[in-house]
Amino acid sequence: MAKILSGTELSNAMRAEIAEEAARFQQQTGVKPGLATVLVGDDPASQVYVRMKGRAAEAAGFHSRSIVLPGDAPHERLIGVVDGLNADPEIHGILVQLPLPKQIRASEVLLRIDPAKDVDAFHPMNMGRLASGARDVLEPCTPAGIVELLLRNGYDPAGKRVVIVGRSNIVGRPLALLLLRTGRGGDATVTVAHSRTPDLAAVTREADILVAAAGRAELIRRDMVKPGAIVIDVGVNRIDDPASEKGYRLVGDVAFDEVEEIAEAITPVPGGVGPMTITMLLRNTLEAARRLTARGTEGQTAAGPHG
Amino acid sequence: MAKILSGTELSNAMRAEIAEEAARFQQQTGVKPGLATVLVGDDPASQVYVRMKGRAAEAAGFHSRSIVLPGDAPHERLIGVVDGLNADPEIHGILVQLPLPKQIRASEVLLRIDPAKDVDAFHPMNMGRLASGARDVLEPCTPAGIVELLLRNGYDPAGKRVVIVGRSNIVGRPLALLLLRTGRGGDATVTVAHSRTPDLAAVTREADILVAAAGRAELIRRDMVKPGAIVIDVGVNRIDDPASEKGYRLVGDVAFDEVEEIAEAITPVPGGVGPMTITMLLRNTLEAARRLTARGTEGQTAAGPHG
Repeated sequence: MAKILSGTELSNAMRAEIAEEAARFQQQTGVKPGLATVLVGDDPASQVYVRMKGRAAEAAGFHSRSIVLPGDAPHERLIGVVDGLNADPEIHGILVQLPLPKQIRASEVLLRIDPAKDVDAFHPMNMGRLASGARDVLEPCTPAGIVELLLRNGYDPAGKRVVIVGRSNIVGRPLALLLLRTGRGGDATVTVAHSRTPDLAAVTREADILVAAAGRAELIRRDMVKPGAIVIDVGVNRIDDPASEKGYRLVGDVAFDEVEEIAEAITPVPGGVGPMTITMLLRNTLEAARRLTARGTEGQTAAGPHG
Repeated sequence: MAKILSGTELSNAMRAEIAEEAARFQQQTGVKPGLATVLVGDDPASQVYVRMKGRAAEAAGFHSRSIVLPGDAPHERLIGVVDGLNADPEIHGILVQLPLPKQIRASEVLLRIDPAKDVDAFHPMNMGRLASGARDVLEPCTPAGIVELLLRNGYDPAGKRVVIVGRSNIVGRPLALLLLRTGRGGDATVTVAHSRTPDLAAVTREADILVAAAGRAELIRRDMVKPGAIVIDVGVNRIDDPASEKGYRLVGDVAFDEVEEIAEAITPVPGGVGPMTITMLLRNTLEAARRLTARGTEGQTAAGPHG
């Protein structure tokens, strides 16, 4: 039976570390890391996510601000909110919850966020610097959480063959870029497979570390995994389950019961990668606060290349 | 014996196409695509490159401007030149020749170039949009040239296993991003290997299309290539050759004579990937001229997200 890689446990440990670091940072500089969440409309799932992020920030001793606009708020109003947060010295991280209503041009909004406060790390400036191998960059949260989950469990990806199934902007592509950097958490030989890969099983069986991020329930079966592999399951899929109270249950992209029998280690769903994402958001906010504070001290401008 | 994929021939054909398109574009809009090259100092190799680019632009009917600053030009002077070119309506592509002298902060200079005129496509905004899978983006020249060389010879990478050896910012990483996009020239299953890959031969033998971009002379031997593979050689290495007049000869990253015997197709060095790079620079300049002209017409601003 595989070792279970608990993201819940690691998240708890890391959030305690982040809270300590934030307290020390505040002592030294007088600055409290500040996270602003922006929600447009009243989508229940989005409300839950935003609340979880705000609470996690507060629990880490951060300043947390929640901004909620009505679902019919015009585009320009949201732009104004972002501009205000960009200029606000109490705020170091800005998170605009997606999806946004259709009157709002989402890509313009995300581009408007100061890259130095872009704690989701989806701004092209951050993604582009990551793509060029930069290490002094805010890292996309879910991919960064996967790398931490590996490293802190003793599975250094350096020199290993990592196969990522799925090429999304949020997980697959940025994870490949993280794993290809030189240094900590990088130096892996990385393969990205996807829905257009003909013989997927042949590719996934090459993996020392297999990351399933395709968004397809139980896509990865036992015969697709090399015995002794480390399996990271990023999927969260609802499948019908009349036996359960809700009528459905959550499963990952990996057929857990089968794969657990031959993997060296595996993440559960839920409780695996999921909790790491918000933890990395907190780490990015603390990191952004550090850099913005140092930058303020050095008198650099927001237009600087290493902002 | 393998089919030889001539970049020289394809470049000639594509440059003729680009010249025709540029002439048509000028007829329709009154705008001549304009490329500015900026050289600091008198490095002989850089002088040759800049001259080749300028001549290729002229041969395609472009407006070509060459700016040369003395080797001790201060950083701020180069910034001023870039600002001037950014604002110049006759210029659609700006190329600052690397390397730059040490008093100049190269990364600041490259960031200063308007991403819409960044025909080398190394600006983080362009790299970041490419990393997110965007198709309406200027493409880095050497990787884009490799994709064209494949497509125009009937080797569509879609659904194929591509192994890239080398993870540079200029070739390996951006090529992986191009090949992972959906649509034309993309949809490949991509593996990136590098100096930290333990059993390189095992990885390269998986390749339907093998791209050698490691910068190591004749790294790829016969036993590292699957029979029938397509082999793209990006390397240009000098090795000692007392028998030759110059005392050296140029070889690629592939042991050509050996690999040619088992490959389906292979690029020569020189005359393979090399000539494609400048051709893609011309294509980017024409494309930048089209977009900047359309943007002017639509009255959008340089800060727009699709600039």
